[in-house]
Amino acid sequence: MPSLESYRKELDYSYAPGLFPCMEAVRKRPDAVRRVIVSSRLAEGSAKDGLMRLCEKQGIRVETADRALARLSGKENVFAAAVFEKRQGSLSSDEKHLVLHHPSDKGNLGTMLRTALGFGFRNIAVIRPAADWDDPHVIRASMGAMFSLEIAGYDDFSQYRQAYPAHALFPFMLTGALPPEEAARGLSGPYALILGNEGSGLPQEFASLGQAVRIPHSGDIDSLNLAIAAGIGMYVFSSLTS
Amino acid sequence: MPSLESYRKELDYSYAPGLFPCMEAVRKRPDAVRRVIVSSRLAEGSAKDGLMRLCEKQGIRVETADRALARLSGKENVFAAAVFEKRQGSLSSDEKHLVLHHPSDKGNLGTMLRTALGFGFRNIAVIRPAADWDDPHVIRASMGAMFSLEIAGYDDFSQYRQAYPAHALFPFMLTGALPPEEAARGLSGPYALILGNEGSGLPQEFASLGQAVRIPHSGDIDSLNLAIAAGIGMYVFSSLTS
Repeated sequence: MPSLESYRKELDYSYAPGLFPCMEAVRKRPDAVRRVIVSSRLAEGSAKDGLMRLCEKQGIRVETADRALARLSGKENVFAAAVFEKRQGSLSSDEKHLVLHHPSDKGNLGTMLRTALGFGFRNIAVIRPAADWDDPHVIRASMGAMFSLEIAGYDDFSQYRQAYPAHALFPFMLTGALPPEEAARGLSGPYALILGNEGSGLPQEFASLGQAVRIPHSGDIDSLNLAIAAGIGMYVFSSLTS
Repeated sequence: MPSLESYRKELDYSYAPGLFPCMEAVRKRPDAVRRVIVSSRLAEGSAKDGLMRLCEKQGIRVETADRALARLSGKENVFAAAVFEKRQGSLSSDEKHLVLHHPSDKGNLGTMLRTALGFGFRNIAVIRPAADWDDPHVIRASMGAMFSLEIAGYDDFSQYRQAYPAHALFPFMLTGALPPEEAARGLSGPYALILGNEGSGLPQEFASLGQAVRIPHSGDIDSLNLAIAAGIGMYVFSSLTS
């Protein structure tokens, strides 16, 4: 088996660092996991036993390789990592979507993926340029949530829209007309929440593509953090629609 | 004037790195700002002019010091920083509080402070041990929001409670009985939202101190990210109470 390289976007595989994200990879997408690397310092106990048993059941090879682990994760305190094959996700036409337009911060992206899974948004569209969602930092921040999600990348918003023309669109904008509760009221059928870049938000033309939403907040701050806005939006929409 | 040291918790001053946080310090707490440091690479223009004018008006000295700036901020792309005196905040008995019990992540803490200001929570209690809210990383993540907040530290929760015995308490817990909308309904008078540590949450005994709240989410994730949970909690409570 070839030796493992430090992560680069060009590779066709990536790493899920950390015991919990590694377990999620093995549990939720076993066919994609090429092997699992563990540290010799991983304490004997139920967590290790669970991982070993799961890998054995799935026919996944487990190697002890301290140096490779430290190199791949960039951290000394990572005790396990899964090596997994990347794939393009496939979104459902019938389910609600989260559309992320040019997200640039890896931590924010991972947090949004974890939150999306928590509120039943299993279909994620990412409009490029964007942070690489297969990057180990994103996977770690998502706590492995991405292994339970379908994530598909698009070169621009119109490419996404062509593929899913029927979704009701809700761009989140500082100039939005309605708070999320009013926008979500009475909504039935598939819909998409659209959130812009951390620094620049969504371009103004998105306002005319659907019903623009604004999360009310005081004028003491310029805007909410992107992951916070996405979290509130997904919470409100998922609790008011079925 | 003594030379500036790299930030340590023991210092009686800290740094607000970045143009926006620096402006917030000068605007909102001018008496606490000892001086402002700018980079020779700070482009001439309206942002620089605005900062210069504000400092002149407040009688705050501005120095150009590239090396000090890079050392203090740990980043090459920081073009301004305010040097400010720390102080213990003072909470109001009449206003709503956000109580953070052992928050440990600086980025999360800064994001929560920014969100708190956005939803009108201007009184923040932090129960130690906790991340240092005067740390430049926190200030940067808060986008300078902390200069508009009162932040007070306590050695344990009972010390906070003794000082503010009348606030209705809402601990956020995975075992909480009510969703935030139901807990907030009909609420009048001062209240406190209490959120626990990123990894361990709140100790179980908090359930009996007030009305425990749970933000509903699917069983596909263990818990929401702390800053996301705090954001949803503050959003719901502030929009349903006056």
